[in-house]
Amino acid sequence: MRTETQRPVGLAVVGAGYWGPNLVRNALVSPHTQLHYVVDVDRERAERVCASYAGVAATDVLAEALCDPRVEAVAVATPACTHLDVALTALDAGKHVMIEKPLAASYEEGLHLVRAAESAGLVLMCDHTYCYTPAVAKIRELVHAGVLGDFQFLDSVRINLGLVQRDINVLWDLAPHDLSILDFVLPQGCSPLAVAAHGADPLGVGQACIAYLTLQLSGGAIAHVHVNWLSPTKVRTTMVGGSKRTLMWDDLNPAQRIAVYDRGVDMADPDDLALDERREAMVSYRSGDMVAPALQEREALQAAMEEFAACIREGRTPATDGRAGLRVLDVLEAANRSLMFHGSVVALRGEAR
Amino acid sequence: MRTETQRPVGLAVVGAGYWGPNLVRNALVSPHTQLHYVVDVDRERAERVCASYAGVAATDVLAEALCDPRVEAVAVATPACTHLDVALTALDAGKHVMIEKPLAASYEEGLHLVRAAESAGLVLMCDHTYCYTPAVAKIRELVHAGVLGDFQFLDSVRINLGLVQRDINVLWDLAPHDLSILDFVLPQGCSPLAVAAHGADPLGVGQACIAYLTLQLSGGAIAHVHVNWLSPTKVRTTMVGGSKRTLMWDDLNPAQRIAVYDRGVDMADPDDLALDERREAMVSYRSGDMVAPALQEREALQAAMEEFAACIREGRTPATDGRAGLRVLDVLEAANRSLMFHGSVVALRGEAR
Amino acid sequence: MRTETQRPVGLAVVGAGYWGPNLVRNALVSPHTQLHYVVDVDRERAERVCASYAGVAATDVLAEALCDPRVEAVAVATPACTHLDVALTALDAGKHVMIEKPLAASYEEGLHLVRAAESAGLVLMCDHTYCYTPAVAKIRELVHAGVLGDFQFLDSVRINLGLVQRDINVLWDLAPHDLSILDFVLPQGCSPLAVAAHGADPLGVGQACIAYLTLQLSGGAIAHVHVNWLSPTKVRTTMVGGSKRTLMWDDLNPAQRIAVYDRGVDMADPDDLALDERREAMVSYRSGDMVAPALQEREALQAAMEEFAACIREGRTPATDGRAGLRVLDVLEAANRSLMFHGSVVALRGEAR
Amino acid sequence: MRTETQRPVGLAVVGAGYWGPNLVRNALVSPHTQLHYVVDVDRERAERVCASYAGVAATDVLAEALCDPRVEAVAVATPACTHLDVALTALDAGKHVMIEKPLAASYEEGLHLVRAAESAGLVLMCDHTYCYTPAVAKIRELVHAGVLGDFQFLDSVRINLGLVQRDINVLWDLAPHDLSILDFVLPQGCSPLAVAAHGADPLGVGQACIAYLTLQLSGGAIAHVHVNWLSPTKVRTTMVGGSKRTLMWDDLNPAQRIAVYDRGVDMADPDDLALDERREAMVSYRSGDMVAPALQEREALQAAMEEFAACIREGRTPATDGRAGLRVLDVLEAANRSLMFHGSVVALRGEAR
Repeated sequence: MRTETQRPVGLAVVGAGYWGPNLVRNALVSPHTQLHYVVDVDRERAERVCASYAGVAATDVLAEALCDPRVEAVAVATPACTHLDVALTALDAGKHVMIEKPLAASYEEGLHLVRAAESAGLVLMCDHTYCYTPAVAKIRELVHAGVLGDFQFLDSVRINLGLVQRDINVLWDLAPHDLSILDFVLPQGCSPLAVAAHGADPLGVGQACIAYLTLQLSGGAIAHVHVNWLSPTKVRTTMVGGSKRTLMWDDLNPAQRIAVYDRGVDMADPDDLALDERREAMVSYRSGDMVAPALQEREALQAAMEEFAACIREGRTPATDGRAGLRVLDVLEAANRSLMFHGSVVALRGEAR
Repeated sequence: MRTETQRPVGLAVVGAGYWGPNLVRNALVSPHTQLHYVVDVDRERAERVCASYAGVAATDVLAEALCDPRVEAVAVATPACTHLDVALTALDAGKHVMIEKPLAASYEEGLHLVRAAESAGLVLMCDHTYCYTPAVAKIRELVHAGVLGDFQFLDSVRINLGLVQRDINVLWDLAPHDLSILDFVLPQGCSPLAVAAHGADPLGVGQACIAYLTLQLSGGAIAHVHVNWLSPTKVRTTMVGGSKRTLMWDDLNPAQRIAVYDRGVDMADPDDLALDERREAMVSYRSGDMVAPALQEREALQAAMEEFAACIREGRTPATDGRAGLRVLDVLEAANRSLMFHGSVVALRGEAR
Repeated sequence: MRTETQRPVGLAVVGAGYWGPNLVRNALVSPHTQLHYVVDVDRERAERVCASYAGVAATDVLAEALCDPRVEAVAVATPACTHLDVALTALDAGKHVMIEKPLAASYEEGLHLVRAAESAGLVLMCDHTYCYTPAVAKIRELVHAGVLGDFQFLDSVRINLGLVQRDINVLWDLAPHDLSILDFVLPQGCSPLAVAAHGADPLGVGQACIAYLTLQLSGGAIAHVHVNWLSPTKVRTTMVGGSKRTLMWDDLNPAQRIAVYDRGVDMADPDDLALDERREAMVSYRSGDMVAPALQEREALQAAMEEFAACIREGRTPATDGRAGLRVLDVLEAANRSLMFHGSVVALRGEAR
Repeated sequence: MRTETQRPVGLAVVGAGYWGPNLVRNALVSPHTQLHYVVDVDRERAERVCASYAGVAATDVLAEALCDPRVEAVAVATPACTHLDVALTALDAGKHVMIEKPLAASYEEGLHLVRAAESAGLVLMCDHTYCYTPAVAKIRELVHAGVLGDFQFLDSVRINLGLVQRDINVLWDLAPHDLSILDFVLPQGCSPLAVAAHGADPLGVGQACIAYLTLQLSGGAIAHVHVNWLSPTKVRTTMVGGSKRTLMWDDLNPAQRIAVYDRGVDMADPDDLALDERREAMVSYRSGDMVAPALQEREALQAAMEEFAACIREGRTPATDGRAGLRVLDVLEAANRSLMFHGSVVALRGEAR
């Protein structure tokens, strides 16, 4: 039953650059949101984005949108260095906020936002878009239901020809996707403890264009992310290994995005073995079927918008809330420090209170 | 012209386990070698391997083969911990030696062998088999001819379901392939300086079953190797990135093993740019053709045998000599130390004299 | 130089169903067209399609659009059975016409249209969209430039889960793509002579859901098209074989759509051989490189629109004119007759005058 | 329990050319056979094949092998035109016979052999090797168990660079594989009724190098085979469509040879529908999982040898008996006639008595 509380959430989109138009398009078609403003420091750009849509105003004055009582929430797609400022202004004006990844330009700034939202009782959501794809939802479901068994490893490759960025390295550009996915699918009680990052800048642009990130996880598990702006071929694969099954996700293969292999190395129970025969007998192969589960086709950003609106209406915490964004920033900052110290292992802060 | 000096090299194969029968088979069909003995501590195993072949004797006494003046050279395929002993005995008896990878169980042992062979003026070859495949030969040719431009990175993935080994971790089992290939294709003047390794042992077998190895190379280049015994799918890919072109090698795609992409990120000459426009203007995309060069089909071990025989007859150093084996051991030992210290960066010894 | 004659062509789109909105969207963004009307028998549907666009009127009265002197041309995307009526009305009103494939519901109707356009001196273009993709343009270029050598064969597979159609079989639904591509890339002097089609209707819906179409081409070449609505996997591959090189086009592999193989079977010149050694000596393998040429990314329909506008302005015949549409209808009708007679070979009419 | 009746079958292999050595190798390692002779008209070739094996005699006199009472059975791998002569001689001598595909050079010759074996009460097996692969065994199992539902279609592609043959066209060279597989997996009561073949000889060698073969099956099902000697890429795929599930077999993908799709087009029960809504309502999509069943790795020829030996010992008919070979010849001859008459549909003889 659709009640009054499910009326569309009045929305302003801030930022009309690369990602903003996607927010605008999805906000317009979603029954859960009602777009009132597009805000951009470049007023013409804002106008271009909303020109043909009735009832949407373009402005270069954020306050104009925030003053309008119809606006209940703000979706922020400005450069990361402005997230703190924009989001804080919105929260201060009593608006719920969804922020493009990364949550902020630093952990400190992100923490500031999280605390501001929590003390104001407002929804702060980090738009970790991939977490709203049917593929990642399926991965989480399989991990959490125990289908994969104990979590052992996650290996992610996200490489392609990427435009070298001015202010951020390849880790900050691409790895937030992998880190937010990792954060989303990890089972209860398993979390990253420390990070080491190795990079190279073969073009001499002053930023790593190739990077390898290793995360030590609690319980002896491991995660690894390979990001690269110099690969002529595009690869988007993630392998999630468990004690029972291992899953391969190939996001570029729409016909078979996820494959679950019931195939692996089995261990005998070591208690059943005398000590000296322990290693020999411990391991045997298992050759089972592979299942590629059917996945719905659905635009992830649409589902993210719906989650944002539902959290506002129901007063609950988003699946990818500000703290999820904070955990990703924790890893990114540690990774940058590790890069600076040539791959030294850097411990994470862990959950902030 | 085929002269007397090209008469087949008289050979003994030591070790009739996993790899030895391949040596035997190749030695028998090669016109460059004449197999006289198969030696194994398990005499029956040696007999089984050479049973049906006329003129090949089985023995469990190495000295028996070494005493025979027809035997000029020995090919060693015993466990790594016995390489020093077997190879040294053979060198002392004046025989040329080819050794299965890794050269020895430690850098010190390997160095001992290299010095022994050098002082005796005998050929010491490390059987880095992959270096004798048409694919790796082509990669080396393209790198050395400058077709790829400046060497920027090498990324190698070698994963599959692998039987957990008793005494060695996944790095010592699989990475010697990648490291010997790296050593073989690197351009003059580019060499590994330091190593960091990260691993996990999610089965609790006392050995890393998953490992990531990063090598810092001179000149700011980087190499990375991912080896994994727990992957349900088999992957064998190596990407070699250069300033002009980038190459993908997929060893499991016989129809298109090597693809050379004339596609990438171009840099403007920074001297032509004012300082402040430097970063913006520096980078542009290049979208060129891909060429998959035709490769001969040839068994690598056959070519390795031929190289060994030719080096003996011509008194020259093999393409993969003892020192190449030593450089691989240098990296492997540093990697083990890094693993032990949770990913600390460990400097390599560099070339021993 | 952009002259007055290059001013945008005033356009009406007729048909707002499945394909019409694509025409509308492309007409709006193209600098070569100016959209004035969307016409549909269902006025609401027409309104929905053009609602948010300024300056575009929705109507269910075709005459309304045809009376407007700003309308110089009409793009028709109505069901095939209405093409004759709609297009003839437009031609009679002195408008240039672009028609969605197939040109008409029958060869006779198509011929009627072609003659009407020719006698009125108006442009009649068949929107064979695939012919305007960079991939097909490249194939045509390679065939016509002689890079493939003599044309030997074309083999096309276009299969996927397809909704069983009410009035047309799988050949009429899917094969127009393959046939228009064949028509477009065939070298001068090579054309289809006869057709045989085999089909099956395993669902019992009264229409073939699986069909195989063979075309005998002049000069001994052959073409074959496999279309299938029951395949759970989607395949879109075309192989074009020539005496020098053979080309593979995989439209579902954006990273490598076209691959040109310099690999094949070579023939000795039979005149150089004695008669009895003719066959033995005639054939040898050639193992050369494969090249995957870089292709621009461009929306095909945009390019088709541009061609239509340019033909109107320059008074020339489109690359895919009415006669091209007619040649496709010739094959489709013959294919239907062959299906009806269980695969009998049916000769084509050939070029109509 | 292994009884006296399971003692190895005494064997002679006739023909030491392309395929014979495979028979020899498998006969030697199989516990079910004991190889005594290799026979070839070229005695040296026979000697080369069995030289190094103890207890195997080489001869160019077939009668020598047939006289030896230890020889119970003969495996024939000579050119097809000699099959009748060799096999008949062996049958007359009271030996069981396994024959390389095709069974004979013509249907008449094949029928002669089948009748001779049947009247002598001897085993006549046609070595349709593919039928003994784990993949084809799995396909048959799934079809026969009803997992795929009603059999609807089979589509097979077997193309690669092939050496143009002197006396046989590409259909006789390659299609016997597909036809024997079709014969093997077809459900009870479903069989080919008629055949049409289209071919091309673009090299002018006097034989079709490209051919398309369509088979009309009883019950409205269809089968199609594409064979081609001029394809620069090797393809080996077979799709088997059923009313419930459709199966894809890619023999060149060892990691996932068979994929079973629970995905398709569903039909409503027409009896539940009023006549005029019949077509509209009849069809809907079904989007289910895909399962890739685990397959054993096993050499097919080994399994074929075992079947031959078991049939001899147990007095039963092989899974691929002479009549299966005859059914394949029936199709091949009809296909040749169809080729000769430019694709005319040719009815099959059906089962001979």
